[in-house]
Amino acid sequence: MKNKLTLIKVGGQIVEERETLQQLLSDFSKINGHKVLVHGGGKIATRIAAQLGIESKLVNGRRITDADMLNVVTMVYGGLVNKQIVAGLQALGVNALGLTGADMNCMRSEKRPVKEIDYGLVGDVKEVDASILADLIAKNIVPVIAPLTHDKKGKLLNTNADTIAAETAKALSNYFDVTLVFCFEKKGVLRDENDENSVIPQITKPLFKQYVADATIQGGMIPKLENAFDALVAGVKQVVISKADEIGKHTGTVIVK
Amino acid sequence: MKNKLTLIKVGGQIVEERETLQQLLSDFSKINGHKVLVHGGGKIATRIAAQLGIESKLVNGRRITDADMLNVVTMVYGGLVNKQIVAGLQALGVNALGLTGADMNCMRSEKRPVKEIDYGLVGDVKEVDASILADLIAKNIVPVIAPLTHDKKGKLLNTNADTIAAETAKALSNYFDVTLVFCFEKKGVLRDENDENSVIPQITKPLFKQYVADATIQGGMIPKLENAFDALVAGVKQVVISKADEIGKHTGTVIVK
Repeated sequence: MKNKLTLIKVGGQIVEERETLQQLLSDFSKINGHKVLVHGGGKIATRIAAQLGIESKLVNGRRITDADMLNVVTMVYGGLVNKQIVAGLQALGVNALGLTGADMNCMRSEKRPVKEIDYGLVGDVKEVDASILADLIAKNIVPVIAPLTHDKKGKLLNTNADTIAAETAKALSNYFDVTLVFCFEKKGVLRDENDENSVIPQITKPLFKQYVADATIQGGMIPKLENAFDALVAGVKQVVISKADEIGKHTGTVIVK
Repeated sequence: MKNKLTLIKVGGQIVEERETLQQLLSDFSKINGHKVLVHGGGKIATRIAAQLGIESKLVNGRRITDADMLNVVTMVYGGLVNKQIVAGLQALGVNALGLTGADMNCMRSEKRPVKEIDYGLVGDVKEVDASILADLIAKNIVPVIAPLTHDKKGKLLNTNADTIAAETAKALSNYFDVTLVFCFEKKGVLRDENDENSVIPQITKPLFKQYVADATIQGGMIPKLENAFDALVAGVKQVVISKADEIGKHTGTVIVK
Protein backbone atom coordinates (compact mmCIF):
# COMPACT_ATOMS: atom_id res chain seq x y z
CA MET A 1 0.00 0.00 0.00
CA LYS A 2 1.25 3.46 -0.88
CA ASN A 3 1.58 6.25 1.68
CA LYS A 4 -0.78 9.20 1.49
CA LEU A 5 0.37 12.49 0.00
CA THR A 6 -1.53 15.79 -0.15
CA LEU A 7 -0.57 18.27 -2.84
CA ILE A 8 -2.00 21.75 -2.30
CA LYS A 9 -2.06 24.44 -4.97
CA VAL A 10 -2.61 28.00 -3.76
CA GLY A 11 -2.93 31.12 -5.87
CA GLY A 12 -1.20 34.44 -5.72
CA GLN A 13 -3.83 36.26 -3.68
CA ILE A 14 -3.27 34.12 -0.57
CA VAL A 15 0.51 34.46 -0.58
CA GLU A 16 0.25 38.22 -1.21
CA GLU A 17 -0.80 39.30 2.28
CA ARG A 18 1.28 38.53 5.36
CA GLU A 19 -1.76 37.47 7.46
CA THR A 20 -3.39 35.16 4.92
CA LEU A 21 0.02 33.66 4.12
CA GLN A 22 0.72 32.98 7.80
CA GLN A 23 -2.70 31.33 8.19
CA LEU A 24 -2.10 29.22 5.11
CA LEU A 25 1.31 28.06 6.32
CA SER A 26 -0.11 27.26 9.75
CA ASP A 27 -2.99 25.23 8.23
CA PHE A 28 -0.61 23.52 5.80
CA SER A 29 1.81 22.60 8.58
CA LYS A 30 -1.00 20.72 10.36
CA ILE A 31 -1.78 18.40 7.45
CA ASN A 32 -0.79 14.86 8.38
CA GLY A 33 1.46 12.75 6.22
CA HIS A 34 3.52 13.64 3.18
CA LYS A 35 2.73 16.89 1.44
CA VAL A 36 3.70 19.29 -1.35
CA LEU A 37 2.83 22.97 -1.85
CA VAL A 38 2.58 24.60 -5.28
CA HIS A 39 2.20 28.36 -5.25
CA GLY A 40 1.50 31.26 -7.60
CA GLY A 41 2.53 34.85 -7.10
CA GLY A 42 1.15 36.73 -10.08
CA LYS A 43 -0.09 39.74 -8.17
CA ILE A 44 3.27 40.35 -6.50
CA ALA A 45 5.00 39.93 -9.86
CA THR A 46 2.65 42.51 -11.38
CA ARG A 47 3.42 44.95 -8.54
CA ILE A 48 7.21 44.48 -8.68
CA ALA A 49 7.14 44.73 -12.48
CA ALA A 50 5.25 48.04 -12.20
CA GLN A 51 7.85 49.31 -9.71
CA LEU A 52 10.56 48.39 -12.23
CA GLY A 53 8.67 50.20 -14.99
CA ILE A 54 7.77 46.96 -16.77
CA GLU A 55 4.23 46.77 -18.10
CA SER A 56 2.24 43.60 -17.36
CA LYS A 57 0.49 42.39 -20.50
CA LEU A 58 -2.45 40.06 -20.02
CA VAL A 59 -4.61 38.43 -22.73
CA ASN A 60 -7.76 36.69 -21.44
CA GLY A 61 -6.27 36.80 -17.94
CA ARG A 62 -3.08 35.07 -19.04
CA ARG A 63 0.25 36.82 -18.71
CA ILE A 64 2.38 37.53 -21.77
CA THR A 65 5.95 36.86 -20.67
CA ASP A 66 8.66 38.83 -22.45
CA ALA A 67 12.34 38.68 -21.40
CA ASP A 68 11.98 41.44 -18.79
CA MET A 69 8.86 39.84 -17.31
CA LEU A 70 10.59 36.46 -17.18
CA ASN A 71 13.30 38.05 -15.03
CA VAL A 72 10.61 39.48 -12.76
CA VAL A 73 8.75 36.17 -12.32
CA THR A 74 12.06 34.36 -11.80
CA MET A 75 12.82 36.81 -8.99
CA VAL A 76 9.34 36.85 -7.50
CA TYR A 77 8.16 33.24 -7.90
CA GLY A 78 11.54 31.50 -7.55
CA GLY A 79 13.02 33.90 -5.01
CA LEU A 80 10.78 36.18 -2.96
CA VAL A 81 7.58 34.13 -2.64
CA ASN A 82 9.18 30.69 -2.67
CA LYS A 83 11.89 31.40 -0.09
CA GLN A 84 9.55 33.29 2.23
CA ILE A 85 7.22 30.28 2.22
CA VAL A 86 10.16 27.93 2.82
CA ALA A 87 11.45 30.00 5.77
CA GLY A 88 7.91 30.32 7.16
CA LEU A 89 7.34 26.56 7.01
CA GLN A 90 10.74 25.81 8.56
CA ALA A 91 9.70 27.94 11.55
CA LEU A 92 6.64 25.69 11.88
CA GLY A 93 8.76 22.53 11.87
CA VAL A 94 8.05 21.62 8.24
CA ASN A 95 11.27 20.66 6.42
CA ALA A 96 10.50 22.61 3.25
CA LEU A 97 12.58 22.64 0.07
CA GLY A 98 11.92 25.34 -2.52
CA LEU A 99 12.02 24.19 -6.12
CA THR A 100 11.39 25.19 -9.70
CA GLY A 101 11.10 22.74 -12.56
CA ALA A 102 14.75 23.45 -13.40
CA ASP A 103 15.97 22.18 -10.03
CA MET A 104 16.99 18.51 -10.29
CA ASN A 105 15.42 18.69 -13.76
CA CYS A 106 12.04 17.99 -12.12
CA MET A 107 9.99 19.44 -14.94
CA ARG A 108 11.01 20.05 -18.52
CA SER A 109 8.83 22.17 -20.76
CA GLU A 110 8.84 23.61 -24.25
CA LYS A 111 8.09 27.18 -25.22
CA ARG A 112 4.43 27.32 -26.19
CA PRO A 113 4.06 27.43 -29.98
CA VAL A 114 2.67 30.71 -31.31
CA LYS A 115 -0.88 30.35 -32.61
CA GLU A 116 -3.38 33.24 -32.37
CA ILE A 117 -1.56 34.60 -29.34
CA ASP A 118 2.19 34.73 -28.64
CA TYR A 119 2.40 34.11 -24.91
CA GLY A 120 6.16 34.66 -25.03
CA LEU A 121 8.44 32.77 -22.66
CA VAL A 122 5.76 30.40 -21.39
CA GLY A 123 6.34 26.68 -21.04
CA ASP A 124 4.09 23.73 -21.80
CA VAL A 125 5.13 20.80 -19.59
CA LYS A 126 6.62 17.86 -21.50
CA GLU A 127 8.39 15.68 -18.94
CA VAL A 128 8.29 15.25 -15.18
CA ASP A 129 10.98 13.40 -13.23
CA ALA A 130 9.61 12.67 -9.77
CA SER A 131 12.04 9.92 -8.70
CA ILE A 132 14.41 12.05 -6.59
CA LEU A 133 11.43 14.14 -5.43
CA ALA A 134 9.74 10.96 -4.18
CA ASP A 135 12.96 9.96 -2.36
CA LEU A 136 13.09 13.32 -0.62
CA ILE A 137 9.41 13.24 0.30
CA ALA A 138 9.90 9.79 1.83
CA LYS A 139 12.57 11.46 4.03
CA ASN A 140 9.93 13.98 5.16
CA ILE A 141 11.14 16.79 2.95
CA VAL A 142 8.23 18.98 1.82
CA PRO A 143 8.69 20.40 -1.69
CA VAL A 144 7.46 23.96 -2.24
CA ILE A 145 7.18 24.45 -5.98
CA ALA A 146 7.24 27.78 -7.85
CA PRO A 147 5.50 28.05 -11.25
CA LEU A 148 8.65 28.02 -13.36
CA THR A 149 10.03 25.26 -15.56
CA HIS A 150 12.98 25.00 -17.94
CA ASP A 151 13.55 23.75 -21.48
CA LYS A 152 16.79 21.85 -20.59
CA LYS A 153 18.53 24.16 -23.07
CA GLY A 154 19.25 26.85 -20.50
CA LYS A 155 15.98 28.79 -20.61
CA LEU A 156 13.56 29.20 -17.73
CA LEU A 157 9.91 29.38 -18.76
CA ASN A 158 6.91 30.83 -16.94
CA THR A 159 4.42 28.01 -16.37
CA ASN A 160 0.83 27.84 -15.18
CA ALA A 161 0.74 26.84 -11.50
CA ASP A 162 -2.42 24.68 -11.92
CA THR A 163 -0.60 22.71 -14.62
CA ILE A 164 2.49 22.30 -12.44
CA ALA A 165 0.29 21.05 -9.58
CA ALA A 166 -1.56 18.56 -11.80
CA GLU A 167 1.60 17.26 -13.52
CA THR A 168 3.46 16.88 -10.21
CA ALA A 169 0.46 15.07 -8.68
CA LYS A 170 0.31 12.68 -11.64
CA ALA A 171 4.05 11.91 -11.50
CA LEU A 172 3.97 11.38 -7.72
CA SER A 173 1.04 8.96 -8.10
CA ASN A 174 3.59 6.31 -9.01
CA TYR A 175 4.91 6.54 -5.44
CA PHE A 176 2.03 7.80 -3.27
CA ASP A 177 -1.76 7.89 -2.93
CA VAL A 178 -2.13 11.50 -4.04
CA THR A 179 -4.90 13.93 -3.13
CA LEU A 180 -4.63 17.05 -5.28
CA VAL A 181 -6.24 20.15 -3.73
CA PHE A 182 -6.89 23.29 -5.78
CA CYS A 183 -7.56 26.27 -3.51
CA PHE A 184 -9.57 29.11 -4.92
CA GLU A 185 -11.88 31.96 -3.86
CA LYS A 186 -15.03 29.86 -3.51
CA LYS A 187 -15.71 27.04 -1.07
CA GLY A 188 -15.91 24.50 -3.88
CA VAL A 189 -17.92 23.90 -7.04
CA LEU A 190 -21.21 25.68 -6.36
CA ARG A 191 -24.66 24.58 -7.52
CA ASP A 192 -25.64 28.27 -7.42
CA GLU A 193 -22.73 30.65 -7.94
CA ASN A 194 -24.37 33.27 -5.70
CA ASP A 195 -24.79 30.89 -2.78
CA GLU A 196 -21.57 29.97 -0.94
CA ASN A 197 -23.48 27.21 0.86
CA SER A 198 -24.44 25.38 -2.31
CA VAL A 199 -21.16 23.45 -2.55
CA ILE A 200 -21.54 20.18 -4.48
CA PRO A 201 -19.83 17.68 -2.13
CA GLN A 202 -18.83 15.11 -4.73
CA ILE A 203 -18.63 14.98 -8.51
CA THR A 204 -18.12 11.82 -10.54
CA LYS A 205 -17.63 11.72 -14.31
CA PRO A 206 -21.31 10.84 -15.03
CA LEU A 207 -22.47 13.59 -12.63
CA PHE A 208 -20.07 16.06 -14.29
CA LYS A 209 -21.58 15.32 -17.73
CA GLN A 210 -25.06 15.77 -16.32
CA TYR A 211 -24.14 19.11 -14.64
CA VAL A 212 -22.63 20.41 -17.87
CA ALA A 213 -25.70 19.30 -19.83
CA ASP A 214 -28.10 21.09 -17.48
CA ALA A 215 -25.74 24.15 -17.20
CA THR A 216 -25.21 23.81 -13.43
CA ILE A 217 -21.48 23.85 -14.26
CA GLN A 218 -20.34 26.30 -16.91
CA GLY A 219 -17.59 28.68 -18.03
CA GLY A 220 -14.08 28.38 -16.59
CA MET A 221 -15.08 25.60 -14.23
CA ILE A 222 -15.50 23.15 -17.14
CA PRO A 223 -11.79 23.03 -18.19
CA LYS A 224 -10.78 23.01 -14.48
CA LEU A 225 -12.88 19.89 -13.92
CA GLU A 226 -11.76 18.31 -17.19
CA ASN A 227 -8.16 18.69 -15.96
CA ALA A 228 -9.20 17.14 -12.64
CA PHE A 229 -10.63 14.07 -14.41
CA ASP A 230 -7.44 13.83 -16.54
CA ALA A 231 -5.42 13.74 -13.32
CA LEU A 232 -7.66 10.95 -11.95
CA VAL A 233 -7.20 8.92 -15.12
CA ALA A 234 -3.43 9.39 -14.76
CA GLY A 235 -3.46 7.89 -11.28
CA VAL A 236 -4.28 10.70 -8.84
CA LYS A 237 -6.60 9.31 -6.15
CA GLN A 238 -8.87 12.31 -5.72
CA VAL A 239 -9.00 15.98 -6.62
CA VAL A 240 -10.49 18.51 -4.21
CA ILE A 241 -11.61 22.04 -5.07
CA SER A 242 -11.73 24.08 -1.90
CA LYS A 243 -11.12 27.44 -0.25
CA ALA A 244 -7.61 28.17 1.05
CA ASP A 245 -8.81 28.95 4.55
CA GLU A 246 -10.46 25.54 4.76
CA ILE A 247 -7.31 23.52 4.06
CA GLY A 248 -7.32 20.30 6.01
CA LYS A 249 -10.99 20.67 7.00
CA HIS A 250 -12.23 18.13 4.43
CA THR A 251 -14.70 20.59 2.95
CA GLY A 252 -15.09 21.59 -0.68
CA THR A 253 -15.90 19.52 -3.73
CA VAL A 254 -14.30 16.09 -4.05
CA ILE A 255 -13.83 14.87 -7.59
CA VAL A 256 -13.50 11.13 -8.05
CA LYS A 257 -13.58 8.77 -11.02
CA MET B 1 38.25 6.35 1.33
CA LYS B 2 35.98 9.30 0.75
CA ASN B 3 35.01 10.51 -2.70
CA LYS B 4 36.38 13.82 -3.96
CA LEU B 5 34.22 16.94 -3.92
CA THR B 6 35.07 20.36 -5.31
CA LEU B 7 33.24 23.37 -3.85
CA ILE B 8 33.62 26.53 -5.91
CA LYS B 9 32.72 29.99 -4.64
CA VAL B 10 32.28 32.68 -7.26
CA GLY B 11 31.53 36.35 -6.68
CA GLY B 12 28.93 38.65 -8.12
CA GLN B 13 31.06 40.11 -10.91
CA ILE B 14 31.35 36.81 -12.75
CA VAL B 15 27.64 36.00 -12.66
CA GLU B 16 26.74 39.56 -13.68
CA GLU B 17 27.68 39.30 -17.37
CA ARG B 18 26.13 36.74 -19.68
CA GLU B 19 29.47 35.84 -21.33
CA THR B 20 31.52 35.40 -18.15
CA LEU B 21 28.65 33.46 -16.58
CA GLN B 22 28.43 31.10 -19.58
CA GLN B 23 32.20 30.53 -19.48
CA LEU B 24 32.05 29.85 -15.73
CA LEU B 25 29.20 27.35 -16.13
CA SER B 26 31.01 25.62 -18.99
CA ASP B 27 34.25 25.37 -16.95
CA PHE B 28 32.33 24.23 -13.86
CA SER B 29 30.46 21.56 -15.83
CA LYS B 30 33.80 20.01 -16.84
CA ILE B 31 35.04 19.48 -13.27
CA ASN B 32 35.19 15.75 -12.57
CA GLY B 33 33.51 14.19 -9.56
CA HIS B 34 31.09 15.65 -7.05
CA LYS B 35 30.79 19.42 -6.92
CA VAL B 36 28.98 22.35 -5.33
CA LEU B 37 28.71 25.97 -6.50
CA VAL B 38 28.24 28.89 -4.10
CA HIS B 39 27.50 32.23 -5.75
CA GLY B 40 27.14 35.90 -4.87
CA GLY B 41 25.15 38.47 -6.77
CA GLY B 42 25.73 41.75 -4.96
CA LYS B 43 26.16 43.90 -8.04
CA ILE B 44 22.90 42.73 -9.60
CA ALA B 45 21.14 43.29 -6.25
CA THR B 46 22.52 46.84 -6.14
CA ARG B 47 21.26 47.49 -9.68
CA ILE B 48 17.77 46.03 -9.11
CA ALA B 49 17.51 47.90 -5.78
CA ALA B 50 18.36 51.16 -7.56
CA GLN B 51 15.66 50.44 -10.19
CA LEU B 52 13.19 49.92 -7.33
CA GLY B 53 14.28 53.20 -5.72
CA ILE B 54 15.98 51.45 -2.80
CA GLU B 55 19.32 52.88 -1.77
CA SER B 56 22.20 50.43 -1.23
CA LYS B 57 24.02 51.24 1.99
CA LEU B 58 27.53 49.88 2.35
CA VAL B 59 29.88 50.25 5.33
CA ASN B 60 33.48 49.15 4.69
CA GLY B 61 32.28 47.30 1.59
CA ARG B 62 29.66 45.36 3.55
CA ARG B 63 25.99 45.75 2.73
CA ILE B 64 23.56 47.04 5.33
CA THR B 65 20.42 44.93 4.86
CA ASP B 66 17.13 46.59 5.82
CA ALA B 67 13.74 44.94 5.18
CA ASP B 68 13.44 46.31 1.63
CA MET B 69 16.97 45.23 0.76
CA LEU B 70 16.33 41.77 2.20
CA ASN B 71 13.43 41.43 -0.25
CA VAL B 72 15.73 42.48 -3.08
CA VAL B 73 18.51 40.01 -2.20
CA THR B 74 15.91 37.26 -1.69
CA MET B 75 14.64 37.96 -5.22
CA VAL B 76 18.05 38.38 -6.81
CA TYR B 77 20.22 35.81 -5.00
CA GLY B 78 17.51 33.18 -4.33
CA GLY B 79 15.56 33.74 -7.57
CA LEU B 80 17.17 35.46 -10.53
CA VAL B 81 20.85 34.51 -10.16
CA ASN B 82 20.32 31.10 -8.57
CA LYS B 83 17.71 29.83 -11.02
CA GLN B 84 19.53 31.16 -14.09
CA ILE B 85 22.64 29.26 -12.96
CA VAL B 86 20.56 26.13 -12.32
CA ALA B 87 18.93 26.29 -15.75
CA GLY B 88 22.31 27.02 -17.38
CA LEU B 89 23.94 24.02 -15.71
CA GLN B 90 21.02 21.72 -16.57
CA ALA B 91 21.58 22.61 -20.24
CA LEU B 92 25.18 21.41 -19.80
CA GLY B 93 24.08 18.09 -18.31
CA VAL B 94 24.78 19.04 -14.69
CA ASN B 95 21.87 18.05 -12.43
CA ALA B 96 21.83 21.29 -10.43
CA LEU B 97 19.62 22.03 -7.43
CA GLY B 98 19.30 25.64 -6.27
CA LEU B 99 19.30 26.15 -2.52
CA THR B 100 19.37 28.72 0.24
CA GLY B 101 20.17 27.89 3.85
CA ALA B 102 16.43 27.79 4.56
CA ASP B 103 15.87 24.92 2.12
CA MET B 104 15.94 21.58 3.97
CA ASN B 105 17.16 23.68 6.93
CA CYS B 106 20.69 23.35 5.51
CA MET B 107 22.04 26.40 7.31
CA ARG B 108 20.65 28.13 10.37
CA SER B 109 21.97 31.54 11.35
CA GLU B 110 21.29 34.24 13.90
CA LYS B 111 20.93 37.94 13.22
CA ARG B 112 24.31 39.54 13.78
CA PRO B 113 24.38 41.35 17.14
CA VAL B 114 24.64 45.12 16.84
CA LYS B 115 28.08 46.39 17.95
CA GLU B 116 29.61 49.51 16.34
CA ILE B 117 27.68 48.87 13.13
CA ASP B 118 24.12 47.59 12.72
CA TYR B 119 24.33 45.42 9.62
CA GLY B 120 20.57 44.84 9.75
CA LEU B 121 19.10 41.55 8.56
CA VAL B 122 22.43 39.75 8.23
CA GLY B 123 23.01 36.25 9.55
CA ASP B 124 25.98 34.70 11.31
CA VAL B 125 25.98 30.95 10.61
CA LYS B 126 25.29 28.80 13.69
CA GLU B 127 24.41 25.34 12.42
CA VAL B 128 24.87 23.40 9.20
CA ASP B 129 22.99 20.20 8.39
CA ALA B 130 24.72 18.52 5.48
CA SER B 131 23.29 15.00 5.83
CA ILE B 132 20.54 15.24 3.19
CA LEU B 133 22.83 17.41 1.06
CA ALA B 134 25.48 14.66 1.16
CA ASP B 135 22.82 12.09 0.16
CA LEU B 136 21.82 14.21 -2.82
CA ILE B 137 25.42 14.82 -3.87
CA ALA B 138 26.06 11.06 -3.76
CA LYS B 139 23.16 10.79 -6.25
CA ASN B 140 25.03 13.22 -8.55
CA ILE B 141 22.90 16.22 -7.65
CA VAL B 142 24.95 19.43 -7.76
CA PRO B 143 23.87 21.99 -5.16
CA VAL B 144 23.97 25.64 -6.25
CA ILE B 145 23.84 27.72 -3.09
CA ALA B 146 22.69 31.36 -2.80
CA PRO B 147 24.05 33.54 0.03
CA LEU B 148 20.91 33.47 2.16
CA THR B 149 20.25 31.64 5.42
CA HIS B 150 17.36 31.58 7.89
CA ASP B 151 16.94 31.82 11.65
CA LYS B 152 14.49 28.88 11.87
CA LYS B 153 11.98 31.39 13.25
CA GLY B 154 10.66 32.42 9.84
CA LYS B 155 13.21 35.07 8.87
CA LEU B 156 15.58 34.91 5.95
CA LEU B 157 18.96 36.56 6.56
CA ASN B 158 21.51 37.92 4.11
CA THR B 159 24.74 35.98 4.60
CA ASN B 160 28.30 36.38 3.36
CA ALA B 161 28.93 33.98 0.45
CA ASP B 162 32.53 33.24 1.52
CA THR B 163 31.22 32.16 4.92
CA ILE B 164 28.52 29.97 3.33
CA ALA B 165 31.17 28.34 1.13
CA ALA B 166 33.54 27.68 4.07
CA GLU B 167 30.78 26.37 6.38
CA THR B 168 29.34 24.11 3.68
CA ALA B 169 32.82 22.79 2.86
CA LYS B 170 33.47 22.03 6.53
CA ALA B 171 30.15 20.22 6.98
CA LEU B 172 30.63 18.18 3.79
CA SER B 173 34.11 17.12 4.95
CA ASN B 174 32.38 14.48 7.06
CA TYR B 175 31.29 12.81 3.83
CA PHE B 176 33.79 13.81 1.14
CA ASP B 177 37.42 14.84 0.53
CA VAL B 178 36.65 18.51 -0.02
CA THR B 179 38.63 21.01 -2.07
CA LEU B 180 37.33 24.53 -1.41
CA VAL B 181 38.04 27.01 -4.23
CA PHE B 182 37.62 30.75 -3.76
CA CYS B 183 37.54 32.54 -7.10
CA PHE B 184 38.53 36.16 -7.15
CA GLU B 185 39.98 38.83 -9.48
CA LYS B 186 43.63 37.80 -9.14
CA LYS B 187 45.25 34.54 -10.21
CA GLY B 188 46.00 33.61 -6.60
CA VAL B 189 47.88 35.02 -3.64
CA LEU B 190 50.54 37.21 -5.23
CA ARG B 191 54.09 37.74 -3.98
CA ASP B 192 53.94 41.15 -5.69
CA GLU B 193 50.43 42.57 -6.03
CA ASN B 194 51.38 44.36 -9.27
CA ASP B 195 52.66 41.20 -10.92
CA GLU B 196 49.99 38.71 -11.96
CA ASN B 197 52.71 36.14 -12.58
CA SER B 198 53.97 36.17 -8.99
CA VAL B 199 51.39 33.66 -7.73
CA ILE B 200 52.59 31.78 -4.64
CA PRO B 201 51.84 28.15 -5.60
CA GLN B 202 51.47 26.73 -2.10
CA ILE B 203 51.08 28.17 1.39
CA THR B 204 51.42 26.16 4.59
CA LYS B 205 50.73 27.51 8.07
CA PRO B 206 54.46 28.15 8.85
CA LEU B 207 54.91 29.84 5.43
CA PHE B 208 51.79 31.97 6.07
CA LYS B 209 53.22 33.22 9.38
CA GLN B 210 56.50 34.04 7.66
CA TYR B 211 54.75 35.92 4.81
CA VAL B 212 52.71 37.95 7.30
CA ALA B 213 55.84 38.73 9.31
CA ASP B 214 57.75 39.99 6.26
CA ALA B 215 54.63 41.81 4.89
CA THR B 216 54.47 39.76 1.67
CA ILE B 217 50.84 39.05 2.66
CA GLN B 218 48.88 41.96 4.11
CA GLY B 219 45.47 43.65 4.33
CA GLY B 220 42.29 41.78 3.39
CA MET B 221 44.21 38.69 2.34
CA ILE B 222 45.14 37.93 5.98
CA PRO B 223 41.57 37.18 7.23
CA LYS B 224 40.86 35.30 3.96
CA LEU B 225 43.80 33.00 4.62
CA GLU B 226 43.01 32.68 8.33
CA ASN B 227 39.54 31.47 7.30
CA ALA B 228 41.18 29.04 4.90
CA PHE B 229 43.34 27.56 7.69
CA ASP B 230 40.24 27.33 9.93
CA ALA B 231 38.54 25.30 7.20
CA LEU B 232 41.56 22.98 6.96
CA VAL B 233 41.52 22.45 10.74
CA ALA B 234 37.81 21.61 10.46
CA GLY B 235 38.52 18.85 7.96
CA VAL B 236 38.62 20.47 4.51
CA LYS B 237 41.40 18.81 2.49
CA GLN B 238 42.71 21.88 0.68
CA VAL B 239 41.72 25.44 -0.06
CA VAL B 240 42.55 27.04 -3.41
CA ILE B 241 42.53 30.75 -4.20
CA SER B 242 42.25 31.20 -7.92
CA LYS B 243 40.80 33.21 -10.77
CA ALA B 244 37.32 32.26 -12.01
CA ASP B 245 38.47 31.81 -15.59
CA GLU B 246 41.07 29.28 -14.45
CA ILE B 247 38.61 26.91 -12.76
CA GLY B 248 39.70 23.34 -13.19
CA LYS B 249 43.15 24.31 -14.49
CA HIS B 250 44.91 23.57 -11.18
CA THR B 251 46.43 27.03 -11.05
CA GLY B 252 46.25 29.52 -8.22
CA THR B 253 47.45 29.27 -4.66
CA VAL B 254 46.90 26.00 -2.81
CA ILE B 255 46.58 26.30 0.96
CA VAL B 256 47.34 23.17 2.97
CA LYS B 257 47.92 22.47 6.65
